[in-house]
Order: sequence, then structure tokens, then C-alpha cells
Amino acid sequence: MKVSIIGTTGYGGIELLRILHNHPVFEIHSIHSTKDEVTIWDEYPHLYNIIDKKMEKIDFDRIAEESDLVFLATPSGVSGSLAGEFAARDIKMIDLSGDLRLKTEGEYEKWYKKTPAKDEVVQGAVYGLSEWNMERIRDAKWIANPGCYATAALLGLAPVIKENIVEPWSIIIDGKSGTSGAGKSLVHTSLFAEVNENLRIYKVNEHQHTPEIEQQLKEWNSGIRPITFSTHLIPITRGIMATIYVQLSENWDNKRVMELYKESYQDAPFVRVRPENNYPAVKEVVTTNYCDIGLNVDERTGRLTIVSVIDNLMKGAAGQAVQNANMMFGLDQTTGLGFLPVYP
Amino acid sequence: MKVSIIGTTGYGGIELLRILHNHPVFEIHSIHSTKDEVTIWDEYPHLYNIIDKKMEKIDFDRIAEESDLVFLATPSGVSGSLAGEFAARDIKMIDLSGDLRLKTEGEYEKWYKKTPAKDEVVQGAVYGLSEWNMERIRDAKWIANPGCYATAALLGLAPVIKENIVEPWSIIIDGKSGTSGAGKSLVHTSLFAEVNENLRIYKVNEHQHTPEIEQQLKEWNSGIRPITFSTHLIPITRGIMATIYVQLSENWDNKRVMELYKESYQDAPFVRVRPENNYPAVKEVVTTNYCDIGLNVDERTGRLTIVSVIDNLMKGAAGQAVQNANMMFGLDQTTGLGFLPVYP
Amino acid sequence: MKVSIIGTTGYGGIELLRILHNHPVFEIHSIHSTKDEVTIWDEYPHLYNIIDKKMEKIDFDRIAEESDLVFLATPSGVSGSLAGEFAARDIKMIDLSGDLRLKTEGEYEKWYKKTPAKDEVVQGAVYGLSEWNMERIRDAKWIANPGCYATAALLGLAPVIKENIVEPWSIIIDGKSGTSGAGKSLVHTSLFAEVNENLRIYKVNEHQHTPEIEQQLKEWNSGIRPITFSTHLIPITRGIMATIYVQLSENWDNKRVMELYKESYQDAPFVRVRPENNYPAVKEVVTTNYCDIGLNVDERTGRLTIVSVIDNLMKGAAGQAVQNANMMFGLDQTTGLGFLPVYP
Amino acid sequence: MKVSIIGTTGYGGIELLRILHNHPVFEIHSIHSTKDEVTIWDEYPHLYNIIDKKMEKIDFDRIAEESDLVFLATPSGVSGSLAGEFAARDIKMIDLSGDLRLKTEGEYEKWYKKTPAKDEVVQGAVYGLSEWNMERIRDAKWIANPGCYATAALLGLAPVIKENIVEPWSIIIDGKSGTSGAGKSLVHTSLFAEVNENLRIYKVNEHQHTPEIEQQLKEWNSGIRPITFSTHLIPITRGIMATIYVQLSENWDNKRVMELYKESYQDAPFVRVRPENNYPAVKEVVTTNYCDIGLNVDERTGRLTIVSVIDNLMKGAAGQAVQNANMMFGLDQTTGLGFLPVYP
Repeated sequence: MKVSIIGTTGYGGIELLRILHNHPVFEIHSIHSTKDEVTIWDEYPHLYNIIDKKMEKIDFDRIAEESDLVFLATPSGVSGSLAGEFAARDIKMIDLSGDLRLKTEGEYEKWYKKTPAKDEVVQGAVYGLSEWNMERIRDAKWIANPGCYATAALLGLAPVIKENIVEPWSIIIDGKSGTSGAGKSLVHTSLFAEVNENLRIYKVNEHQHTPEIEQQLKEWNSGIRPITFSTHLIPITRGIMATIYVQLSENWDNKRVMELYKESYQDAPFVRVRPENNYPAVKEVVTTNYCDIGLNVDERTGRLTIVSVIDNLMKGAAGQAVQNANMMFGLDQTTGLGFLPVYP
Repeated sequence: MKVSIIGTTGYGGIELLRILHNHPVFEIHSIHSTKDEVTIWDEYPHLYNIIDKKMEKIDFDRIAEESDLVFLATPSGVSGSLAGEFAARDIKMIDLSGDLRLKTEGEYEKWYKKTPAKDEVVQGAVYGLSEWNMERIRDAKWIANPGCYATAALLGLAPVIKENIVEPWSIIIDGKSGTSGAGKSLVHTSLFAEVNENLRIYKVNEHQHTPEIEQQLKEWNSGIRPITFSTHLIPITRGIMATIYVQLSENWDNKRVMELYKESYQDAPFVRVRPENNYPAVKEVVTTNYCDIGLNVDERTGRLTIVSVIDNLMKGAAGQAVQNANMMFGLDQTTGLGFLPVYP
Repeated sequence: MKVSIIGTTGYGGIELLRILHNHPVFEIHSIHSTKDEVTIWDEYPHLYNIIDKKMEKIDFDRIAEESDLVFLATPSGVSGSLAGEFAARDIKMIDLSGDLRLKTEGEYEKWYKKTPAKDEVVQGAVYGLSEWNMERIRDAKWIANPGCYATAALLGLAPVIKENIVEPWSIIIDGKSGTSGAGKSLVHTSLFAEVNENLRIYKVNEHQHTPEIEQQLKEWNSGIRPITFSTHLIPITRGIMATIYVQLSENWDNKRVMELYKESYQDAPFVRVRPENNYPAVKEVVTTNYCDIGLNVDERTGRLTIVSVIDNLMKGAAGQAVQNANMMFGLDQTTGLGFLPVYP
Repeated sequence: MKVSIIGTTGYGGIELLRILHNHPVFEIHSIHSTKDEVTIWDEYPHLYNIIDKKMEKIDFDRIAEESDLVFLATPSGVSGSLAGEFAARDIKMIDLSGDLRLKTEGEYEKWYKKTPAKDEVVQGAVYGLSEWNMERIRDAKWIANPGCYATAALLGLAPVIKENIVEPWSIIIDGKSGTSGAGKSLVHTSLFAEVNENLRIYKVNEHQHTPEIEQQLKEWNSGIRPITFSTHLIPITRGIMATIYVQLSENWDNKRVMELYKESYQDAPFVRVRPENNYPAVKEVVTTNYCDIGLNVDERTGRLTIVSVIDNLMKGAAGQAVQNANMMFGLDQTTGLGFLPVYP
């Protein structure tokens, strides 16, 4: 099975390379960039003597003809138009950007402040939240791979939202992310001297994953009201933690909530619901495709605190993309993703 | 004016030394530790050739006789009994631990799981939240210096709580702290290899600053209900951010909230309310006594997000202690605290 | 092929687990610790739902009977006596500590300041520098796995030392290491607040890898004189860089030196000699078994600068141990070690 | 005494602001930038409500007329031409860049690969290594402030070079620096995700401080031969360590060397020679103007290891600039520089 990757100069693309290089079924046929044609290790010396491929210009026809699947690891605003081209050809496609996720007219422009992709591609793309959308992913031709924050938040919220035991107006998601999420763009706020020993809130009530999270929550439970979602930049390279606060609408205690989550994820190999009084730290999932979840109901307030952690480049991007690709091609979803967390 | 410091082997004590060494009025008379008598730079080589004082055993009588003020920079559980001794002698005292803060019977035992200090000392100690308790601090003999998280949270919440425009059950404080707050104790969770590149939630719904925050909120507004307060360990040495979410009970927009805060803190030299759309990062206050506050009302939800940042060792400990000492001795509250933030 | 690991509570042991869990030939039969018998994920939650093994007490007879190979991931001073016990039984053994490395009488006591292991075990243990000692490793029963600094330094120096083109008194190794090398011991110098934003030299002219490096250099070239070796603690979790300075004794330029290294390591899958003007950074090898080498001859001084980087827990410990195990059992040396570097 | 600062958008300029804001004699008259005229806290929010000055365009005549001293905190290549303009007017000047340091024709072009400043300005500028050039600094009109690496290296080497007890060809300086030295330039190698958890050697045998160090060493001791100087990027914001290796030409032991250094620096308030077996860490000087030095003679090799640490933005830039300014205006050299190190 041959795959092509577009956008291998970014961190998402390079993570796809790391996974796919050892994947037993998918073979990296070609890698592409809009930059000059250089050998990949010229840009990423850690690949020296391991991957000698050149990054090629994007030839839509050739890629569609020679490959079975294309990954778009390009930024939002770029992916959209590339997706249109590939959609017009006969090739499966997984887009890691936000360009194919928002289905309601006007939402993309409002939150991304960019020109949206063609509506038929957007509507045709299946939202690739692997654990909760399996059926449709298996049959999908195009996948809109979920955002990193959205993945952590949605996996954390799914059981209580679907069970309808949360006050619909009470959802608050305090997001915390490492800097690789911002990619390799040259901006002052990504400089080491600005990020290190610092902690910063950004895009307050304006983060573009807000409508993505709400869209999926409403699909599960149409009564859900607007959420509060804030995002913080943490001085780590990889990792996202979503600390989620919801008011439980019925009298659910720790034990019942725990059971609900254990049951919800009993068949999900990448979601680990921690035992009572055990909360995940990001380092415990980083470099892997796991999403770990910790839970606590405070009897003083009736509020549930959900702690959900992922590696933003794995379960939040490349890892989930490969998980989805596995499903699209009828493989076991864990194929090629059996990494253990690097610790410490 | 002579001062003595108890507990100079900890990070709070060493920060007191840094401030007081250049203070124009207070003079460090003696420093004390329960450890062996060694020169301070033996333990802290950064003080080599600057401070040559020896750490002395604690002689209550001599300290009370020779000094005008004693700072207790000892841990919770230790401060309490020392405070009893000094309270029995004629000397002013500022305790940086949590031992003199909780006034309601049983609360200290419940949250700290330790033996409380003598009730008369606890009741006699004024809560040293400098900006909001000035009158009583000026006349105080004993000060219970506020906790680091509590300071960030309370300064962030005070204006809306006192104005009574918050739904009383809606207060959620997502706290994020650097590791110096945990002090120099040798525990695995403080090792570099465990903290670095990691992000961890701890004491979920169990943090001992919870009752301290609630006690003060209720003093301002008796209707306040139990809060949700969570704490996260961030891989930075200094700094706390409290991201606070409250449901506004009336129709207050960004502009009115901003005005309320600007007015509330117009005479507070150490509280900087940021302009609209400008949010503080911890590095912008670290090494100083500032508390910076950013505000945003989300019209979609009617929720106010308050971002409050401090240096946990300064405004969250030693800095506020000196600010209080200044007030106790009739000095300008900023005396000796005019540091600019070290940046980057 | 069954293996047992002693010392799985340390970072070396846990890294062995990470590698061996996915190894196609070796199967982890049992894990052991001197601590209480707990499930491994109790101590290391990142292994939750992945490895459910309990750490067992050390039963020498049973291990020797049931396993084909035992890894000692125990600290220097502990390994020595365990090694004696296993040596008395019929089982292959790889010791990751320094206890079996120094062959000259008195050297171990002098540099480690501990009681040495039995001389027959020390003398019988083959020094496991994989690339340069293959023949003996293949036939070995006991392996003294090299130290992390020693591995980086020796792989960097081997070609010029063996070629005898270095002034024998001119070897200076400036070592820089992350903190995982110090293990999980609770010491103040390993606390986050002490390591972070800091840089420290330690054991100046006293590091215990000095005699290990000299012993091997002299085996290659008996004229080698005492080296200068200094070690610095860098605020990173993993990674070692050895910057090595040697005076070239003949008129060798960059090009000839580069050719010598390329040739020396042409059959070494884990040593990557970088092209001219390309120098390795530690992040480019971390999480893998690679040792990357960069070279520069300064014509102004006739001095060669060698930059050698490894992951101290992989090529500097567990990775090389598995590489050696592969060779001992006739497998390809790369078996189970085909990780790509995690980047960024 | 009025001062102007050119280049306040850079880290060196902002550090000058931090020092001078509290300086008892110098008053910041104006701050200048080549960028748009914005209030300084717009660029650096940590100065909000503290410094409200606007950055102004550079008007040479007005600055020369209104100020007594101008600091050039502009990059190499920019300072040179500005310096020419100010030199033509009647104003004292301290240049923090490398543009006025190298006195030998052709050296600047060779190492900086830029157009040099006017020769009369270069020759007229006194090299501002405060501790060793006091007489000339006091009488100087123009100061070439030393480079950060050069300061650490030269203060570490001065005593043994002047005493002529070092083999003239044996000087090796292994430099390690935090990232603030690279300034705020937007380059990939300064991104958090690239610097964090990494360690990189750069400009191998090509660093532009090499000729600066050699020029001063030769002034002290004309027999000095070319040095080896390498530089490494460490994931810290501030701080430089120079680990220096020299072959002692005579039979000097630890004690004699220690005495030589203690004596050499007995009148230098900012140089702290550590006691035997005590080595400085960068965090012990960061945020201050101290240079701390540790020493060790290895009897096995006759080599002296010198460890010299500074804060690159203080003693390596703005701090030493103010120290020099103090001397130029007849003040005590420590005026306004009495900071204690921030620790931890």
C-alpha cells in the first residue's frame, strides 16, 4: 500500500514519516513540499542515513496515480485547495489541517479568517475522531483529521455528553499545550527565550478549535450550549492536557462516572481510563498514540473534573491520522502504532 | 529596624534574604535554621562574598529581644509551634506558612492533616492580603501571609466578588504553578527528569489553599458557595497563573468589567490590570512583586475569564511578606520592592 | 529467548523494558527489584495497560533456571555482588553498571570508592563497546556494558587513536550530559528548581569514567597518556555530547580525517559520521541507539574537534545492552532497535 | 546625568533599561529604535505601568545635544555606522556590538563578514574589559564593550596569561551559552521546539569572538598562539560557562594557582574566585554582574581547568556596559549594579 505525504517540512509531516517508516503495510512512496527539492535529511538531520528521499514538487496526477493514499500535513489555508485537487482525482486522502472539519456555512471563515475549501469536499470529508466514528471512517474516502485540542477535549467529554448527564451550559475546557502545536513558523512567541520559563494564555475565547468541539458535542447531544475553551502555551515541546470542568446534572458519584468511562472505552486500545485517584501526566503518553483520562467528582460542588492528555503530534495529529488510515484500509487500528512511551 | 528570618534554607527564606539585603530600612539581624550552623553561602553558593552570615539555632528570647520583626519562612506544620513561642514574646511576626490562616475550627486539620497552632495565635493573626486588608495589616502584630495560589486567585476575583456580580456557585480556578512552590523537599515528583517536558495535575479537589480562598471570598461576599480549584505543575521554576472562570450574574460586558478592575486597583502599585485584549504571561512578573490581571467576557456564554499571574516566591510569599512588613512599620508599601522584571 | 531484568525501578531498567517489550526475539520473562513487590505501572504509570508484570524479589536460582539472559540495571556498588551470584550460575549476563569494567587492580576502589566485585567476574566480563569489540562480545558470557560518557568519547576517538595520529598527551574530553544519567536518586542537585535554567560542572577531574576511557584507549594504543575529562550537567532529560579536542600529530586535514571516520564506521549501522560542516545535535539521536559524529580540523592550530552525541539511556545504556545481547545470541545487531529519532 | 539607548527592542537594550531605571545617577533620557515609534511596553509588556517612554527615531544631533552618554545596543553591522555618526558629535558612547573591538585591519571582515566601521572610530574605542582596563576606560570617550564569551574567557584566563605560566599553544575554551545571546532574531535554530531538550555546537572554529579573545591575550602576553574556541547552545535563557583548559608550563599546583587568582581579583567587586573544590554554576550569577571562577589543577596531566560563568546579558553585555559607564563618569563601578542573584 503506497502513501504520499504532502508537507514534510512541518512537524506533523515529519511525525508521519517517523511512524510510516516502520509501518508494516504502508510504504512511503513519495514526500512533497512546496519548498525547493532537497533531501529530507538536509532539512531534518536526524534522518541522515535513515531516509534518503528527496522532497518533490506536488504533481497531483502522478501522486493520485501512483499512491493509494495521500496525507496532507500542510497548514490550514493551504490544505483546502490541495484537497480540492486530490478530491477531483481518484485517491484516498487524510487532511491533518482544520480545512475540512467545519461543516456549517460561515464557521470556517469566522474562526479561521481564511477562504474555505470547496463545500463538496468539506461535506464529503468524514471527521476522523477514531474511537467514536469508526463505521464512517472505514468507508471514508476523505478524512478531516481532528485538531489536537479537539481530540483531547472530545475523548474526555464523550461518555458524559452521550450519556446526557452534564448541564448543557456548564462545559469549560482549560487547554494547555506544548509549542510543537504552533509548528515551525518563525514568530516571536515561539522563540525559546520567550517560551522558556514562561506560561501564556492565548486566543482567549477565540481559538479555532472551539466550533470543531461544539460541532461534535452537538452531534452527540443537540442540547449542548456554547462552551468556554481557553488555551495556554506551556514550555514543553510535545503534549496537551485538557482540564475539563462540567456540572453533573444528576447525582453521579466518582464510582459511577468511573464505570461509565471504563465501559465506554473498553474496546479502545488507545484510550486508557486511569483508576480512581490516578491522574495522567502528559509525559506518560508523549511519543505515543494514547489518550489517558483521569476523573474526579467533587462532592462539595457536584462538578466533574476530567483530565485528558495526548501527544499533540501523535493522537493529536499524525498518530490519529495513521490510526484512521489503518481503518480505511481494513487493518487493525493499532498497526504500526505500538510504541511505548519514552520515559523519562 | 532589625529583622530575623527563620528558615533560610528554603526558597522562601532565601528570597527574603534577596529582598531584605538591599532594603533601605530593614536590616537583617540574624538568620536561623533548624539545621547545623553553617555559613549561608555554604548552602547557597550564589551568596558567596555577598552575605557571610551564619545560620544560627533558634533562640526565641534573644531574637525577641534583639529584633523588631521575625519572618517565619518555615513549612506548614513547623511554623505553627514556632509562632506560639514568638507570640508569647514581644515581637512582631509574619508567618509565610499556612499555619495561621484558617480561622474556622477543624479546617486546618481537615485540609493540612496536621496539628494546628494555638487558637489564640491563629485568631490573632491578620490575613496579609496586602491590597485588601491594609488597615488591619498596619495595626497587626502577627500576620498570616497568604498562600501563593490564594494570592493570585483572590486578587483576580476580588472586584467581581465584592461587586456581587458573579453567580455564587460558578467559581472555577484552574491553577498552574512552577516547581519552586514545592520547595527543596526531596521527592520524586520534584526531580528534573520527572518535571521537565511534563505537565501534571495534583491534589485534585484537595488542595489546602481551597479553604483559604473560600474563607476570604466569604468575608467579602457571604453568599459564595464552594469553589472548584485545581492545581497543575508546570515545568518552570517560578510563576503562578490562575485562570479563573465565573458566570456573570448581570449583563456586564468587557468594558464595564475592565473599568471595575481599573478602578478597584487604581491605588495598588503592585497590581497591573492589563488593557483590553492584553493578557499577562508569568515571565512578565517573575522576580517582582507584581500581580498582573487580564480579563475577557465571552458574549457567547456570559462567562468572565480572569487571568492572574504572580511570582510565587515574591507576591506569593517573600515579596508580599515584605510589603506587609512595610505597612506594619509605617513605610511606603513599595519600599525595597522596586525591582523590574528580569526579561527575558 | 527469555530475559530477566534486575532493577526496573531505575531509568536504565525502564528503558530496557521499552526496547524489549517490542523485541521480536527476546521475551521479558521477569522483572525484579529490591523494593516491595508492586506492579510496574504502579511505579511507572506510563506503562498502565501495557505491561502488567509485577516486580519480583531476586531469586538467583529461579532466574538462572528460567531465563537465558539477565540484565543488571542496578547501580554501581549493587551490581557487583549480584553479578557474583549470577556468575556462579549458568546464565548469560549483561551488567549496565560500572562494576565489571575496570580490570586493573585498585582502579575501581580509587575512582568509585566502593568495594569491587569478585576479580574473576570482573576479568571474565567482556567490555561491551559493540562497534569495536564484536568478536569477543559474540562469544561472551558476561558483558560489562560501557558507561554513557565512555561510549560517546570512545566512539568519537577510536579512529584517530587506532590510526595513531594524535599526540598521546593531548586528549581533552568536555562532556555534557542530561540529568537522567544521575538516575532517580533523591539529591538536591537533581531537583528541577536546581537543574532548570542552570549549567553546572561536576566531579572535576574525578569522574569515574576517566579510567574506563583510558583503559580502552590504551588497549588500542599503548602510548596514550592521562586524559583530561570534565563533565557538565545540562538541563535536558536525555542526551550526551562529548566535545573532544586532540592535537593531530601529523599533517591531517579535514578531508583525510573525514575519510578515515567514514571508512572506520562504514559497517556500523548505529554510528553516523556526518558530512563536512555538519555537526550533530543531541536531539537528533535521542530515543535511538545512534551515535552521531561531527569533525573539524582547525588549520590555525592543527587541532581536531570531534563532536560525538548519544542518548545516554540508549546507546549509553539500555540500547547498547540490547545491541550486545543481539550479538551474544547471533542476531543482527539492530534487531529491535530500529527506532527513528523522535523529533522535535 | 542623561543617557540615551539605541536599540531597545533587543534583549541587550531591554536589560540596559532594567538596570538604568533604578540607577541613582544616570537617568534614561530617551530610547530609540529603527522600528516604528511605539511605547516600549507595547513591545515588552513586562514594562507596563513602569516605563511609559516611546521609542523614538534616531536623531543624532538631538541625542548628542541632550544626552551625556549613548549606549548602542544594536547588532554588529548596524552599530558601526551609528557609531560613526555619534563619534562625529560631542557625546560619550558605549557600543555593545562587536563593531569597534577588532583593531587589526581585515580581522573584522574576515570573522564578521560585514563592512567594518570607520578605522578612526575603531582605533579610538577603548576595549571595555572593566577589571583589566580601568585606567583607559576612565579616560575613554568611546568604549567597545566586550563580547559575552570573550568576557567569560578573558576574566578566566587573565591571571595565568599575565603571569606567563601557560604553554602558549595550549589554550582551549569550550563555551556554552544560553539562547538570549542570539537575540530576538527569527531563525529556526532559536525556536523553542528546536532548542529545548537539545544541545548543539555551532560555528565550530569560526566564532567571531575568537580574534577578540586572541587580541586581548596577546596584549597581555605577546607569545600567545592561536586558541581553540568552540561554542555550544544550551537550553537556558541566560548564562554562559566557559570551561577552559590550559597546560601549565611550570610546576604550579592547585594552591598556588588559587592564590594567584585570589590576589589578581582581590579588588574586583564583581569577580568571585571560588574556594578550592567549589565550582560556580551559571544560575549562581544569572541576573547579576558577577563573574565567578572555579579552578582545578589535575596532577595527572599538569593541566589547569578554569570554569568561568557570567550572565551573558549582564556582565556579558548591559551590566558591564553600565560598569564601564560608571567608571567613565567617575562613579564607583558598582553603582546601580548591586543586584543579588535571583535564586532559584
